[in-house]
Amino acid sequence: MAAVYGGGPDDSEEMVKRVLVTGSSGFIGRHAVPELVRLGYEVHAVNRRPSPPATGVFAHEADLLDAGQTGDVVRHVKPTHLLHLAWYAEHGKFWTSPLNLDWVAASTGLFKAFVEHGGTRAVFAGTCAEYDWSGDGPLHETATLSNPRTLYGVCKNALRQVVQTYGQQAGTSVAWARVFFLYGRDEHPNRLIPSILRPLLAGQPAVVRSGAHVRDLLHVRDVAGGFVGLLDSDVTGTVNIASGDATTLGDVAREAARLIGREDLLTVERQAATPENPGRIVADAARLRREVGWAPRYDLRSGLRDVVESLRRPL
Amino acid sequence: MAAVYGGGPDDSEEMVKRVLVTGSSGFIGRHAVPELVRLGYEVHAVNRRPSPPATGVFAHEADLLDAGQTGDVVRHVKPTHLLHLAWYAEHGKFWTSPLNLDWVAASTGLFKAFVEHGGTRAVFAGTCAEYDWSGDGPLHETATLSNPRTLYGVCKNALRQVVQTYGQQAGTSVAWARVFFLYGRDEHPNRLIPSILRPLLAGQPAVVRSGAHVRDLLHVRDVAGGFVGLLDSDVTGTVNIASGDATTLGDVAREAARLIGREDLLTVERQAATPENPGRIVADAARLRREVGWAPRYDLRSGLRDVVESLRRPL
Repeated sequence: MAAVYGGGPDDSEEMVKRVLVTGSSGFIGRHAVPELVRLGYEVHAVNRRPSPPATGVFAHEADLLDAGQTGDVVRHVKPTHLLHLAWYAEHGKFWTSPLNLDWVAASTGLFKAFVEHGGTRAVFAGTCAEYDWSGDGPLHETATLSNPRTLYGVCKNALRQVVQTYGQQAGTSVAWARVFFLYGRDEHPNRLIPSILRPLLAGQPAVVRSGAHVRDLLHVRDVAGGFVGLLDSDVTGTVNIASGDATTLGDVAREAARLIGREDLLTVERQAATPENPGRIVADAARLRREVGWAPRYDLRSGLRDVVESLRRPL
Repeated sequence: MAAVYGGGPDDSEEMVKRVLVTGSSGFIGRHAVPELVRLGYEVHAVNRRPSPPATGVFAHEADLLDAGQTGDVVRHVKPTHLLHLAWYAEHGKFWTSPLNLDWVAASTGLFKAFVEHGGTRAVFAGTCAEYDWSGDGPLHETATLSNPRTLYGVCKNALRQVVQTYGQQAGTSVAWARVFFLYGRDEHPNRLIPSILRPLLAGQPAVVRSGAHVRDLLHVRDVAGGFVGLLDSDVTGTVNIASGDATTLGDVAREAARLIGREDLLTVERQAATPENPGRIVADAARLRREVGWAPRYDLRSGLRDVVESLRRPL
């Protein structure tokens, strides 16, 4: 593997893998960046606000919703690789926010600038919400129809079509990663896992409403590992980043309660499924494992244990 | 019908239909604008370059690829209606140009600003290139799959998904017009009809290569009439703007040659169909006729005669 900042004679410019990471301080990005550094990438992180310095990472301040600022950063860095994780992601609001339209515009502009300045390999964060959720089987990259029901899913899916087609035409290698249900340290307290763990740890009762719903959960570090592995591969097209394991949310909550020893405080309800919140969302995760060679480091129990630890620490 | 600039007591602000037209000096736009004026719309035309003054039309100079300029115009005009015809359209280049990405970004931004400033009704120019062209039947708005093969078609189709979903969510009425093969005065000389008519009128031989290909042709004034009728209706979703008539390009050329009296100079070849240039592209045009109440004013013969006249004039 080539040294990143080296100056030796074998260390030609061509060898450097220079990756521009958007959303690098986000939930996935903050785990992806150190893995990219470890793999020898010269990492350029774009953030709207100044971020704390990190070893081996060049920080760039830019608002990606401003086409001029985006162009400036790409022109300056001339990345060979792009890992585009940034998007509007405010809990509860991102499904319907008009800002989804801004991120379509920002992302097409970013990708066009990336291609124009010689970029060769790009990975984008898509979502399982691009799939048709009305079926029963595992959601498969090509066998399952794309049929998003939300503005968020529609905007991601529309961007996918544009960047996949333009990448193919321009000779730029593109992979589109569809993320399923992720969890991990420092999640928004209203999201499923913290909404169970936090009250239980405080000796308060916790309720899971959709206890019979089957989901595909993956620890955020494994999601980040999937993105990095995918970026570092030459796999193109759509790739699910998921465990492939089907778990009911009731079982997830019970496992969490067991780890804390407060199963007595947990109530599992069985709300009916709706088209927006269907009974089953599970990935076919074979592509990521077989073609990228990725494997998760956490199973559900060890992943939950990691989150419990992080929540116990401040107490 | 409300007077446009009137100040009478019955002429309340609510009655004014204030339409922002993009691409108003383009091939379709220049025919759509006078029809909108005739229908009583207060027409605001956006163009990148200064345009000659036209009766009943407010001209605005802005580069729609600049989000700031677009926002300024929308904020200033506060249109109730939007007719978005502008796109990159350079003959021969638009199918694959990276500028298609810029127009996706520009159009999402324009529509978002339109909704934010109280817009209630928008019509967008889509294309028959959004359809799957591999079938044999007439291309139908909902029964035929969307499966574009070109960057142009993919970008239009991606934008369609975004604006239809956001319009539905925001309560803004949206129609997406899919345009088929249009012709008329002042076309690019390399396009089919002028490429036959011009040499024949000059006494030179003309050749049609894809003479067996079946297409759906419509005179640009009827296309413009379709857009205006659609905008003035409350029909939503995707609507083909087309004749619904199947004609071989050989028959089109022979008709044109007959009008000029130079059938002797015409050669009709029968090039094989390809996926990019399939044997048959014909619309199911029932929706526009039935739901909008539109009817064409030209048939193929009178439409061609109109073009021949315009080409004879400067001689």
